[in-house]
Amino acid sequence: MKTAFFAAAMGLAAAPALAQDAFVEFRALTPELAQRAATAAMEHCRAEGYQVGVTVTDRFGVPQAFVRDRFAGAHVHETSFRKAWTAVSFRTPTTELAEATKAGTDASAIRNLSQALPLGGGLMIVAGDGDVVAGIGVSGAPSPDLDDVCAEAGIAEIEMEIAF
Amino acid sequence: MKTAFFAAAMGLAAAPALAQDAFVEFRALTPELAQRAATAAMEHCRAEGYQVGVTVTDRFGVPQAFVRDRFAGAHVHETSFRKAWTAVSFRTPTTELAEATKAGTDASAIRNLSQALPLGGGLMIVAGDGDVVAGIGVSGAPSPDLDDVCAEAGIAEIEMEIAF
Amino acid sequence: MKTAFFAAAMGLAAAPALAQDAFVEFRALTPELAQRAATAAMEHCRAEGYQVGVTVTDRFGVPQAFVRDRFAGAHVHETSFRKAWTAVSFRTPTTELAEATKAGTDASAIRNLSQALPLGGGLMIVAGDGDVVAGIGVSGAPSPDLDDVCAEAGIAEIEMEIAF
Amino acid sequence: MKTAFFAAAMGLAAAPALAQDAFVEFRALTPELAQRAATAAMEHCRAEGYQVGVTVTDRFGVPQAFVRDRFAGAHVHETSFRKAWTAVSFRTPTTELAEATKAGTDASAIRNLSQALPLGGGLMIVAGDGDVVAGIGVSGAPSPDLDDVCAEAGIAEIEMEIAF
Amino acid sequence: MKTAFFAAAMGLAAAPALAQDAFVEFRALTPELAQRAATAAMEHCRAEGYQVGVTVTDRFGVPQAFVRDRFAGAHVHETSFRKAWTAVSFRTPTTELAEATKAGTDASAIRNLSQALPLGGGLMIVAGDGDVVAGIGVSGAPSPDLDDVCAEAGIAEIEMEIAF
Amino acid sequence: MKTAFFAAAMGLAAAPALAQDAFVEFRALTPELAQRAATAAMEHCRAEGYQVGVTVTDRFGVPQAFVRDRFAGAHVHETSFRKAWTAVSFRTPTTELAEATKAGTDASAIRNLSQALPLGGGLMIVAGDGDVVAGIGVSGAPSPDLDDVCAEAGIAEIEMEIAF
Amino acid sequence: MKTAFFAAAMGLAAAPALAQDAFVEFRALTPELAQRAATAAMEHCRAEGYQVGVTVTDRFGVPQAFVRDRFAGAHVHETSFRKAWTAVSFRTPTTELAEATKAGTDASAIRNLSQALPLGGGLMIVAGDGDVVAGIGVSGAPSPDLDDVCAEAGIAEIEMEIAF
Amino acid sequence: MKTAFFAAAMGLAAAPALAQDAFVEFRALTPELAQRAATAAMEHCRAEGYQVGVTVTDRFGVPQAFVRDRFAGAHVHETSFRKAWTAVSFRTPTTELAEATKAGTDASAIRNLSQALPLGGGLMIVAGDGDVVAGIGVSGAPSPDLDDVCAEAGIAEIEMEIAF
Repeated sequence: MKTAFFAAAMGLAAAPALAQDAFVEFRALTPELAQRAATAAMEHCRAEGYQVGVTVTDRFGVPQAFVRDRFAGAHVHETSFRKAWTAVSFRTPTTELAEATKAGTDASAIRNLSQALPLGGGLMIVAGDGDVVAGIGVSGAPSPDLDDVCAEAGIAEIEMEIAF
Repeated sequence: MKTAFFAAAMGLAAAPALAQDAFVEFRALTPELAQRAATAAMEHCRAEGYQVGVTVTDRFGVPQAFVRDRFAGAHVHETSFRKAWTAVSFRTPTTELAEATKAGTDASAIRNLSQALPLGGGLMIVAGDGDVVAGIGVSGAPSPDLDDVCAEAGIAEIEMEIAF
Repeated sequence: MKTAFFAAAMGLAAAPALAQDAFVEFRALTPELAQRAATAAMEHCRAEGYQVGVTVTDRFGVPQAFVRDRFAGAHVHETSFRKAWTAVSFRTPTTELAEATKAGTDASAIRNLSQALPLGGGLMIVAGDGDVVAGIGVSGAPSPDLDDVCAEAGIAEIEMEIAF
Repeated sequence: MKTAFFAAAMGLAAAPALAQDAFVEFRALTPELAQRAATAAMEHCRAEGYQVGVTVTDRFGVPQAFVRDRFAGAHVHETSFRKAWTAVSFRTPTTELAEATKAGTDASAIRNLSQALPLGGGLMIVAGDGDVVAGIGVSGAPSPDLDDVCAEAGIAEIEMEIAF
Repeated sequence: MKTAFFAAAMGLAAAPALAQDAFVEFRALTPELAQRAATAAMEHCRAEGYQVGVTVTDRFGVPQAFVRDRFAGAHVHETSFRKAWTAVSFRTPTTELAEATKAGTDASAIRNLSQALPLGGGLMIVAGDGDVVAGIGVSGAPSPDLDDVCAEAGIAEIEMEIAF
Repeated sequence: MKTAFFAAAMGLAAAPALAQDAFVEFRALTPELAQRAATAAMEHCRAEGYQVGVTVTDRFGVPQAFVRDRFAGAHVHETSFRKAWTAVSFRTPTTELAEATKAGTDASAIRNLSQALPLGGGLMIVAGDGDVVAGIGVSGAPSPDLDDVCAEAGIAEIEMEIAF
Repeated sequence: MKTAFFAAAMGLAAAPALAQDAFVEFRALTPELAQRAATAAMEHCRAEGYQVGVTVTDRFGVPQAFVRDRFAGAHVHETSFRKAWTAVSFRTPTTELAEATKAGTDASAIRNLSQALPLGGGLMIVAGDGDVVAGIGVSGAPSPDLDDVCAEAGIAEIEMEIAF
Repeated sequence: MKTAFFAAAMGLAAAPALAQDAFVEFRALTPELAQRAATAAMEHCRAEGYQVGVTVTDRFGVPQAFVRDRFAGAHVHETSFRKAWTAVSFRTPTTELAEATKAGTDASAIRNLSQALPLGGGLMIVAGDGDVVAGIGVSGAPSPDLDDVCAEAGIAEIEMEIAF
């Protein structure tokens, strides 16, 4: 079973990662951009009438920014972080991972890992050249696909800055 | 998928929570009322022939009162707390959340959070003006819907006091 | 949904547990009997060709005896304990609880508790007068129902001693 | 090093616990008494001007009652439970255990166990005949010895009922 | 031992918290103020040459805002949160709690709780009328007292807004 | 239900493990062989275009070697270890265990154990005489069955050395 | 600082562990011997008037046998296991490790590991030829050095069987 | 208290990390170099007569390579990882952090974090231009300072490759 959601991962070896080099290079967002994305995602949800929490992590899943709206539940701190962590660790939007790990699938045990959370609302943030540079997770909207919409609004907020 | 169980959350933004205010205000039960509700729920179950444990938390999920009947199992301390925590954090009765997170649904990974417990028996306690002021969780009855009945009896016990 | 597996719990209130009494009384096995039951269960499985671990707990789920056969896996320490703990805490054989908490059922979130393990092989040990006095859990046989058979052999070993 | 705090344990073998008996008998408080003790301890602290949480467990450390005063911190749910659990598991007041496990002592690693909490405020509740029948833990007073005073007030509340 | 660090707690009962009232009222910061305080604390540290993370929680310890500077370590997400949580739960600056719980003190086992972190850098945020309305935790400066200085800068940023 | 995946376990008692012997003997790989197998598995995946992590454990599940390719996700450290641990503890390839523990099966609660991970990519390493001498787990390929292929390539690398 | 307690480890390389060999060989006790040692340790403590729990693990720290006396506390299941695990993992009696890791020493952070328990009562069981073949941990005696005495009695019980 | 061990952190702001840039850049070792360093550290210890485990992580603490010698204890998987993680997260050799967090110091509560391990044997791996590019942790030598020596040998092995 080769599902679509692993497609990004499969293309990786094409990147110029030659064994003879000593180093691998990575990029992360500045904290200012991370905060802007998180705040924009929260405000988009608020405008829609949803109370959410948002976490932005670097591409290794280490949190950079978090904000929780006034009536969002206590769980969104854990939930939004784990969604962002999952999206960058698996290089897959969590909505796709939710589908690919449903009960009965071959990969369903991914749900038993200590940090992975295959629940919509987690996306990679990708630079203009295709590099994954961060993850964003939104939690608290009435459904996971609405969390996704807010996450996308957060990414849109910084799109210009990460275009190159 | 916009399930009914998130409806309460969606209405939140209508509350007078303006960004220019410095503070958000919350109310919680007194410990005396929390205990009365927990005890009434336990006694209702006992009268029905069930041995249960009951936790009442404030609206942030911090426990205020717990009581366990003499033959109720060791698990009810954890179970009743997590049911109450889940109801107030998600602003949803746990029976609804159980339905909405069943295996195969988009939101099923909520079951993998560290504290959430989508298992009937957890309810919000709502003041007369519609404010969520506490959560109650019951565990040990022969089925989750019977846990719900006892939780409702616990709320009924303090209904007059929280009417305004 | 009132499944059969809660029947034992429902009968509890019929026991002479009057509110005016200060104390509730409980009985537990001696460590010698606990060991005998555990060893007999292991030996029965060994005779069948299975390598298992067995835990006997008191009626509160606190372990009293454990033994692991020479090739039984590292997981049986946790598994056999949690099976015994689950059987006495829920007053239900774990095979029944496995059925009652399957994916899609109302009670399936019981599987998300920190200690409960709805996996066949855990039984209550009941004295001749109907009192639950211990729990036994077996892990490592080729299937949960075979674990059950060995657990029953462990109980049979001490049946005479706990008849009264 | 034979410290005083283990003295109670050393006397245990004098109890009539003969190997040939099948059963060991235990007693626990009714939930009503457990609640009365917890409430009395909280009210004593409140009268002194302290905001606390109180847990009463049975003699195996399983919680029976908990109450938290209105301004007591979020930590008292864990703290009061673990104090009571520690007192009954080690058969030692936690103030004695705090002394006996201080940094530099032979027994200091007891502080690294997952549940033990050698912090004053945890006491055994002992029946008139010397049997340990419950544990009580208080948390939130300005110092551990003041937690102890409130715990003693909780025990005094039910002293008559458990005298025989 | 009645150390100074519990003084705030001792004064609590003087607040108008009468048992006959059904409710207790609390206030929390808006997410906008929480973010401003966190960002100001981070920027103050950055200006001093330190790379830190900052969490602001509400008065129950639930996180509202977090930001991590670009070279701050992976641990600051946990550390800054637990400092803020500890300050509001114990109603004590963590520097005072660090002193009061040092090895050898009566209260040293507080260090063994699952969330408490008696390490300087955690402060209560107090409204003009004396109410605790939030907690702030800073982690990553060269020493805990420098973390404190940045936390104070974060509070100063919102001082005017919470004066009444 | 006697599924095929327990067949290996059932044959165990046929081994010369007589109760009168004091000792049971086990063999493990040298660290050099463990590293060679892990590296070969990673390189096979890399050649296929997949970025993975690989853990080799001894037959008790204690890790001996781990390697993670440059773009493999943060989760592969946990995932590859738990796959290898699961294969040797249950004496079953994790792909078989995934099938045998799917939602709805009798054995599905195995997924709730703290370390077991029924997710393809974990295999036993078996010496020429049939003895289990190690476990190998691969994580990061586009699907669990592709993880299996890389794990097999790791075993093939050391096949000659463990033939006797 | 090279303390004596690491001496055993230092001699290891003298064993014939040549890199060119594919395998390393280990021996473990039969479950019958493990149980005999555990029971003998418990009975020795009981004769002295102490109520203890005893765990015997194989040389990798995987439990083989456990027994708890009738009044021993709930903590001894965890404590006795971790003592045995620690003794075999560090190849050091836990009383020596307690001394070597006291507050203020270079190695004191060993106390912060998840499983290590530097608390007297844990010993290696060594075969006649010097091989470590098991670990034993005793918990519940009035002091750690008395736990040690009972552990030694457990080893003495099987001394003849493991002499060769 | 401004101890020397934070000196590296204090110099960070001098790096060209301007707020107006969208990205921060990081470098990590290739897996091949990570393995070479880990193996060299293990072999250096083996030559000295010590049996150790070694983990190399990237600069965010995510593991890249691990190897354990044949008689090294089960704890070295956790220990070596946490040492490396701690060194890179705190940008401080763990021997310095052990000194700076000893019982009684202001920073001693760092020992209560979930992952930090202030125990000698953990070092940063620094590129020729001063950038931290990885962490290395060694565990199992007779004392933490000897673990340090082996870690340094591991770094020396790859010194030429990371000089520029």
